[in-house]
Amino acid sequence: MPIVTIQVTREGNTPGTNAVTAEEKRQLIKGASQLLLDVLNKPVDTTFVVIQEVDLDNWGVGGLTVPEYRRQKQAKES
Amino acid sequence: MPIVTIQVTREGNTPGTNAVTAEEKRQLIKGASQLLLDVLNKPVDTTFVVIQEVDLDNWGVGGLTVPEYRRQKQAKES
Amino acid sequence: MPIVTIQVTREGNTPGTNAVTAEEKRQLIKGASQLLLDVLNKPVDTTFVVIQEVDLDNWGVGGLTVPEYRRQKQAKES
Amino acid sequence: MPIVTIQVTREGNTPGTNAVTAEEKRQLIKGASQLLLDVLNKPVDTTFVVIQEVDLDNWGVGGLTVPEYRRQKQAKES
Amino acid sequence: MPIVTIQVTREGNTPGTNAVTAEEKRQLIKGASQLLLDVLNKPVDTTFVVIQEVDLDNWGVGGLTVPEYRRQKQAKES
Amino acid sequence: MPIVTIQVTREGNTPGTNAVTAEEKRQLIKGASQLLLDVLNKPVDTTFVVIQEVDLDNWGVGGLTVPEYRRQKQAKES
Repeated sequence: MPIVTIQVTREGNTPGTNAVTAEEKRQLIKGASQLLLDVLNKPVDTTFVVIQEVDLDNWGVGGLTVPEYRRQKQAKES
Repeated sequence: MPIVTIQVTREGNTPGTNAVTAEEKRQLIKGASQLLLDVLNKPVDTTFVVIQEVDLDNWGVGGLTVPEYRRQKQAKES
Repeated sequence: MPIVTIQVTREGNTPGTNAVTAEEKRQLIKGASQLLLDVLNKPVDTTFVVIQEVDLDNWGVGGLTVPEYRRQKQAKES
Repeated sequence: MPIVTIQVTREGNTPGTNAVTAEEKRQLIKGASQLLLDVLNKPVDTTFVVIQEVDLDNWGVGGLTVPEYRRQKQAKES
Repeated sequence: MPIVTIQVTREGNTPGTNAVTAEEKRQLIKGASQLLLDVLNKPVDTTFVVIQEVDLDNWGVGGLTVPEYRRQKQAKES
Repeated sequence: MPIVTIQVTREGNTPGTNAVTAEEKRQLIKGASQLLLDVLNKPVDTTFVVIQEVDLDNWGVGGLTVPEYRRQKQAKES
C-alpha cells in the first residue's frame, strides 16, 4: 500500500518537449511501482503514485527561484 | 490544530458533474472538521483542510495512469 | 483512490488518554473513508488514510511551539 | 538538505496585488533558505523550497471554505 | 531538482526481516533517483528522496487500519 | 492561514548539539511565521508550522543515503 509522491518542476526535460509528457508520466508511474515491488515486495496493484508538477517560480534552490538559480549558475560557468 | 489533506483525482464524481463541485468541497471540509471534533475533541475553528485535485494523468495505480488502469479494468470485466 | 492525510499533535485528546488511542485512530480512518464515499462516491476499498502524529515541540502556531502557545493563551485568559 | 514547503491561498496579499507575485515568491524562497542557514547552519545551496498555491475553495478553516469563513467572520464583526 | 517521497508501512517486507532494512532503503533511494534520471534526465546529484515509515495503526485502507484490513481479508479468503 | 512544513535530517546541526534542539525549533517556528507576515502580510496567529525530522537513513541525495553521501563526498575531497 505504498504512496510515492514525485515532485518535479513543470517544464520539458528531454529534447523536443516543453512539458512532462504523458509518456514520461507513464514511465514514472510504472517505474516507481516496479521499484516498490522489486525492493519491498509490494504488490503493484495497491501502490499509488502522485506526480506534482511545480511552476518554476514556485521552486527554490540556493535561496533563489529556479530560473534565477539557472541564470546565475550559467553566468558563473561562462 | 489538525491539518487534513484530501487528495483526489480532478474529475466529476457524482451524476451530472464533470469536476469536484463547490458544494462537494464544502461538504468535504465540513465533514473532515466535524470528524476531528467528534473523535479527538479538536475545535473546528483551528482545523485546516486542504483539498488537492490531481490530474488523472498524474495519478498512478497498478503501475498505470488512472485512465489506463480504468480501461484495462473495464476490458477485463467485459 | 483518494488519499487522506491527517496531521495531529502527539498527545491525548479525550479524558483518560495520554495519546491518540488505537480506537480513535480506527474512528478517524473509518470516518474519513466514509466521508469520501458519501460526498464523492469513492469506494471505501481504495481510499488510503495516513495519520501523522507530530510532537508538540515540532508544531507551531502563533509563532510559538504548541506548549508555549498554550501557556501564553492560558496566562492571558486568567 | 532541508525541504521547506509553503502552502498559501492563491490570492493577492498586499495592496495592489491579486496573486502572490514573483517578487513575493523570491522573498519567501530567500527568507526560508536564510532561516535554515541561520538556525541550523544548513548551506543555502542545498535547501529546496516549494511554494504551493491553493485555490480559496480548496482551503478550509472553521469547517468552512475560506470565502465562507471570511464572510461569516465579517458578518459577526459588523 | 526532484523530490521523491516514499510512504510505506513500518514493517518487514521480505523474508527474514521485521522492518524496512538499511539495504532496502539504499535500494529505494538509488532506484528512485535512477528513475528520475532515466525518464526525465534529472541529474542524480540534485534529487532528494525521503522515506516515511508509517506505523500500521496509522495507515488505513478499506475504512480499516492495516492490521484489521489484513485480518478481515484473510478471514474472507479462508 | 499558511502552512509551512520544514523537513530536516534528525541530527545535531550546531556545535555541542546532537539533535535539533528545542531552542532551534522555537527559532524555526518563529522565523517562518514572521516570514509569512513580512512577505505576504499573513497574521502570525493563523500560521501553522510543522517540523518533520527525518532519520539519516531515510533521506537520500545523489542516489545515496545521507551517511553514504557524506562519506563519499569526504573521500573525494581528501
